[in-house]
Amino acid sequence: MLGKDLLGIEDLERPEIERILETAQRMTEIGTRDVKKVPTLRGRTVVNLFFEPSTRTQTSFEIAGKRLAADVVNFSTAGSSLSKKESILDTAKTLDAMDPDCVVVRHKVAGVPKRIADVLEAPVINAGDGAHEHPSQALLDMLTVFQQKDRLDGLTVAIIGDIAHSRVARSNIYGFGKMGAEVRIAGPPTMLPADVETLGVKAYCSLREVLDGADVVMALRIQRERLEGACFPSVREYAATFGLDRAKLRYAKDDAIVMHPGPVNRGVELSHDLADHRPSVILDQVRNGVALRMALLYLISGRPRTRAESPQE
Amino acid sequence: MLGKDLLGIEDLERPEIERILETAQRMTEIGTRDVKKVPTLRGRTVVNLFFEPSTRTQTSFEIAGKRLAADVVNFSTAGSSLSKKESILDTAKTLDAMDPDCVVVRHKVAGVPKRIADVLEAPVINAGDGAHEHPSQALLDMLTVFQQKDRLDGLTVAIIGDIAHSRVARSNIYGFGKMGAEVRIAGPPTMLPADVETLGVKAYCSLREVLDGADVVMALRIQRERLEGACFPSVREYAATFGLDRAKLRYAKDDAIVMHPGPVNRGVELSHDLADHRPSVILDQVRNGVALRMALLYLISGRPRTRAESPQE
Amino acid sequence: MLGKDLLGIEDLERPEIERILETAQRMTEIGTRDVKKVPTLRGRTVVNLFFEPSTRTQTSFEIAGKRLAADVVNFSTAGSSLSKKESILDTAKTLDAMDPDCVVVRHKVAGVPKRIADVLEAPVINAGDGAHEHPSQALLDMLTVFQQKDRLDGLTVAIIGDIAHSRVARSNIYGFGKMGAEVRIAGPPTMLPADVETLGVKAYCSLREVLDGADVVMALRIQRERLEGACFPSVREYAATFGLDRAKLRYAKDDAIVMHPGPVNRGVELSHDLADHRPSVILDQVRNGVALRMALLYLISGRPRTRAESPQE
Repeated sequence: MLGKDLLGIEDLERPEIERILETAQRMTEIGTRDVKKVPTLRGRTVVNLFFEPSTRTQTSFEIAGKRLAADVVNFSTAGSSLSKKESILDTAKTLDAMDPDCVVVRHKVAGVPKRIADVLEAPVINAGDGAHEHPSQALLDMLTVFQQKDRLDGLTVAIIGDIAHSRVARSNIYGFGKMGAEVRIAGPPTMLPADVETLGVKAYCSLREVLDGADVVMALRIQRERLEGACFPSVREYAATFGLDRAKLRYAKDDAIVMHPGPVNRGVELSHDLADHRPSVILDQVRNGVALRMALLYLISGRPRTRAESPQE
Repeated sequence: MLGKDLLGIEDLERPEIERILETAQRMTEIGTRDVKKVPTLRGRTVVNLFFEPSTRTQTSFEIAGKRLAADVVNFSTAGSSLSKKESILDTAKTLDAMDPDCVVVRHKVAGVPKRIADVLEAPVINAGDGAHEHPSQALLDMLTVFQQKDRLDGLTVAIIGDIAHSRVARSNIYGFGKMGAEVRIAGPPTMLPADVETLGVKAYCSLREVLDGADVVMALRIQRERLEGACFPSVREYAATFGLDRAKLRYAKDDAIVMHPGPVNRGVELSHDLADHRPSVILDQVRNGVALRMALLYLISGRPRTRAESPQE
Repeated sequence: MLGKDLLGIEDLERPEIERILETAQRMTEIGTRDVKKVPTLRGRTVVNLFFEPSTRTQTSFEIAGKRLAADVVNFSTAGSSLSKKESILDTAKTLDAMDPDCVVVRHKVAGVPKRIADVLEAPVINAGDGAHEHPSQALLDMLTVFQQKDRLDGLTVAIIGDIAHSRVARSNIYGFGKMGAEVRIAGPPTMLPADVETLGVKAYCSLREVLDGADVVMALRIQRERLEGACFPSVREYAATFGLDRAKLRYAKDDAIVMHPGPVNRGVELSHDLADHRPSVILDQVRNGVALRMALLYLISGRPRTRAESPQE
């Protein structure tokens, strides 16, 4: 069960996803204690290697590691030897020689975590690579839905926004699909992926259609830079066409929940009201993020390691 | 005793200040041990949320948390989603959903810690907000004076410098006043606060007068940017009129002590000699800062918490 | 054995170096465990005070401290009161008043760690100062050679590159010399130090000569900025004349090893092939760096401290 690394949801089998979610569900209880610490990973070293800054995700991994009693080291690439033109792989191999038990990698280029994982002895967790995958986000999303709906199988999940450029969308399409949910997407035509058919999802251009019968409505963050470019006329038009509020939400099922990976552009993807109140579960997602990452660190870096005798050959 | 948050000295009653100082005094002993660690806050998470950089204060809180065995997470806002235009409150609520036991907030705008505290489940400690308050600084100053004088009641405290723009001055005026000391202020007229009467202090324009009979002389840091603006002719003139040296200190009581929140502009607020030697107690203030912040973290974040079932409603 | 601080190899006696290396060799075993943590420095505070960014060295010290259960605090000088023009010594004294058990200092100006050590109660470890010394690097280099050759006495060590501007070269010349090895240097004439005679090493201008009979070949990192200046015609010419590949390595002993402090300019100091494969031991150096720094922190900051009653007098 589970390979050395966690690079994407595409690589996982359904039983692996189930095991991660079950483990994470058990971890959620730890966050409710006064003493939010278990000795599971005492003496293990987790390195956050973030080439692209993301304080939210990095903090979530850091808190997750510390609650498992791991030592967490943030390797900031600003001011690192990368400014001395060292290659990414050399940086990663240097860190690897310090014997970490897990390296969490974020990079703006798709595929970098995989290239790093290929040369590292330490397990690698992908914390987001370009428009490729963001597996821990999709897993925490699945955990959140499971808590609300008691199942994933048979649900209808509508993902709305810039699907083409979203690693969150891609990982969730794989994940919910593997777990037996029906995934639909909607967004401006320029923001729908070219390979939509091969992803096995149905694409819609209207909010009303995509929401019809949806159990879960997931709004994606819009990059304003992109909106102001060629993809779409204006922020205002995006909000009018694909932004969610309570009125539009009536197209979905009565008990539909609303999700967003954050941070929300209030008044664009979600109305202020929906950003702050049920049925949105945005802060549950954040809270579950810590528990889910505890599960990943436990499953990935908690295993006994067999080390090569020597780092170079 | 003590509310959920610590936002300012203005909100505290004298018995609360006394309790904090007594707790801090007991904490000072821990810093003298070889093993400077007690398990008091094991498994508690303290987040340093500094929107305005301040390595000194942040390091003091970080060391304080670690000596109590808490997990301390520095949430740097450079490179965070704030650069993605996320609102301060959304950032704070996101952190809150990770279940910290305390969030230490610094912001250059007065009132931000209060606004954050109003929406957070976790307790908030104000680590300095604009020209409003810097309560942990005033409390460590009171602790330092108490160690030197064995009392606060009845002492005469002279605060010198840019009172109008100083959160340190404001917090100390409230604090020493509540503890029964007489607080006087002095500085260039443009640097005295408009509401000086309502603060209950007496303002002086001459160093000689303000020092007369003072037990404690507190020099504030001058922001050179401000000096070179409209407020005052020149740094040299400021130093001549309000800068302290041993000669001028003779106007105060024989056993007067000299304080400064640091960093000192040597040769401006204090002579080199006074910056480095008794009767100045500047490094005692720094040392007491760690003990005082241990006390705050213990009193504020060490309480059992009752959590809402769910973060959104 | 061993003074309060570790500022340079020049100050050490051979028995002191031997003791550090023996201690470090024992520490290497800890990095191979699943639980890579010993309680040796529990409750001790180690401060990384890096005025010059160096993520590699800082991370190595941070991991070393954490594996000994110390609390490690990274004091970043970006955004610190140094930007408020506070002097380096005032910053260091402020930190000292927070009662750290060790301050690790890097600065681009030679002699700064010594000046700091002179005024600090806490022990100081020099993590690199200008072109002066980088003692922990030389010690980890000696440890790596000892692991490969079972001795240092009588070996021939060739150091190649910009010797004049290299603190790594300087510390290794002292270190290997004190341990009974013969040290030779080679590089472009503009990159050889003026005081080469007083250092007790023999200088060569040809790679063939310096390698003849060498047991250890240490290539130094070339600063491209410097190369493009007056010191040397071009990167290409440097690589042709002093860059190492397998063909040129045949001038050395059959069992010679290749070292580099990293990060490598691939194709300049070392061929890609040599950068990645035996006989180079570059990643062993990195791995030994953690063990060596654990030894230093243990020997330097693990001692019982006697504190002055008060920080100012």
